[in-house]
Amino acid sequence: MEQMIGKQSIQFERAVHILSAASIVGKKEGDGPLGKYFDRVGEEDGLFGCQSWEEAESFLQKEAVSMAIQKAGIEKWQLRMIYAGDLLAQTIASSFGIMGFHTPVYGLYGACSTMGEGLSLASMAVAGGYAEYVAAVTSSHFASAEKEFRFPLGYGNQRPLSATWTVTGSGACILGRKGGKARITGITTGKIVDFGLKDSMNMGACMAPAACDSIYQNLMDFNRLPKDYDRIITGDLGQVGQEILFDLLREKGFDIEKQHMDCGIEIFDAATQDTHAGGSGCGCSAVTLASYILPKIEKGEWKRVLFIPTGALLSKVSYNEGNSVPGIAQAVVIEHC
Amino acid sequence: MEQMIGKQSIQFERAVHILSAASIVGKKEGDGPLGKYFDRVGEEDGLFGCQSWEEAESFLQKEAVSMAIQKAGIEKWQLRMIYAGDLLAQTIASSFGIMGFHTPVYGLYGACSTMGEGLSLASMAVAGGYAEYVAAVTSSHFASAEKEFRFPLGYGNQRPLSATWTVTGSGACILGRKGGKARITGITTGKIVDFGLKDSMNMGACMAPAACDSIYQNLMDFNRLPKDYDRIITGDLGQVGQEILFDLLREKGFDIEKQHMDCGIEIFDAATQDTHAGGSGCGCSAVTLASYILPKIEKGEWKRVLFIPTGALLSKVSYNEGNSVPGIAQAVVIEHC
Repeated sequence: MEQMIGKQSIQFERAVHILSAASIVGKKEGDGPLGKYFDRVGEEDGLFGCQSWEEAESFLQKEAVSMAIQKAGIEKWQLRMIYAGDLLAQTIASSFGIMGFHTPVYGLYGACSTMGEGLSLASMAVAGGYAEYVAAVTSSHFASAEKEFRFPLGYGNQRPLSATWTVTGSGACILGRKGGKARITGITTGKIVDFGLKDSMNMGACMAPAACDSIYQNLMDFNRLPKDYDRIITGDLGQVGQEILFDLLREKGFDIEKQHMDCGIEIFDAATQDTHAGGSGCGCSAVTLASYILPKIEKGEWKRVLFIPTGALLSKVSYNEGNSVPGIAQAVVIEHC
Repeated sequence: MEQMIGKQSIQFERAVHILSAASIVGKKEGDGPLGKYFDRVGEEDGLFGCQSWEEAESFLQKEAVSMAIQKAGIEKWQLRMIYAGDLLAQTIASSFGIMGFHTPVYGLYGACSTMGEGLSLASMAVAGGYAEYVAAVTSSHFASAEKEFRFPLGYGNQRPLSATWTVTGSGACILGRKGGKARITGITTGKIVDFGLKDSMNMGACMAPAACDSIYQNLMDFNRLPKDYDRIITGDLGQVGQEILFDLLREKGFDIEKQHMDCGIEIFDAATQDTHAGGSGCGCSAVTLASYILPKIEKGEWKRVLFIPTGALLSKVSYNEGNSVPGIAQAVVIEHC
């Protein structure tokens, strides 16, 4: 029963299988480098036939979970729990998105690290014998996030080059005890790391220390080197955060440049899509995992991946009151099987 | 390893022990019927020496966890994880409150049901062999909640009699494998239940159907009758929600009037404290559990209690966009040992 390893990791005695994953994104994401891999791409207006941005984001979660259920070949009543989160105040995208499934729910908030948090908690539920099938889902929406954290789109405000572009999309995974060609073998729970940075337009820099902390701890706890992973994939550090992460890990004696990939850098072509430092948001790592990372693991192209969604823990209130922007990063070890 | 029971419950093979609990509240709560039971009561201004309401709420979480750690007789580095949540956008009270512990963290959002959610997930972690000691903590603050959901206090707006009063306070529990005189033997994960109600000033009515759903499912899954519990304790339904809960459960064939208690009704004296339908907020059920409920279980006065914090899933955006206020209720079975 003892599954703890090192200071803050868990190695599952029975690995948890990822039966399926699904993604739905907006048009801009569909036009990006990963466009062809997504299950569904929306229209230009970003509303997906809904009346508001928030409703549209809820629709994304509903669609992602529905598609993932279908791909897993199970019925929705077989889902024992859904672990869901998003960036909006009181996580309303999740509540309204998934309530139609009539499934028991745990609502999460880990900023853009939420897919890592959801996969971690969902894995514990399956590995612990508490559930046969569970879902983890997160979403973000460019327009609802700008309204929530910065300015309504109509203001036409300008963004510095260090800023990221919130991904419109939702990704969902169905986890279970067997099946599928990828499995979660361990996790490293993230600590909140605060370097005192206060720039909400440079969230990559705010989150890099947390990513460093979780990656370093994962390597120590599992007694691994960076080369023991085919890829070490952060959520949405972007170009600026990536450089800082490399520097911080080098100070601790690890060079991950060869293995590192960042979902935020992969999802847009910054040169032509005007997305500055890269993509971000709860949906960014979730849709990249579902559409691009998992298939490579399932095919055996990558045997073992460390997936580390990264979150910046701020609100417009904390920002306006002059607080720093602490970060958190939740690491999940995914292996081919 | 199989610990699922019925449709949506878990019966832990190894019950999870509640080693300690601590509570800190504002002056109004200290003046209420439970005043003498709280570990610490603040001053009239509700700021606890801080500069803002949000900072004060973070302070409450920090204090509650610190006191609970001390009572448990462990060191803070022994805490493997903290499960924390609050009502504020992006759960900033939790992030800033607990980051100083440098402990791995899972952030939660379940509105006022969050203490039930936190205890559930924390129990799964301990029972699953993923952690030796974990903490669950939630908070709310009257002034930060009014600003977040309704109007800044300075507006002096009037509240209808169906409205509840957000409790200023934080409660924390330390869970572990052994020790203490109370243990968590099972949980029932809540579904989101939407009766289409839209009145954010009558949240008891919005949450009662969810409470009914989780209580009913708990009784079915564990094959119990209301009399098998010494108390069935909801979070913050208040006077209005309580009546609805009784009616709804009667329709399903159960009468819980003898066993029922509601933290929101207990915490204030509505007649003299002008709190209308009762107390509410993430902190309400948490401080009532820590100060009043657990000691009665520990003494053996109550042998088995069903604790069901209830949450209303709304934000000011969802409310202003005309959405309903769905509810959720997370049930935890706590027994004397």
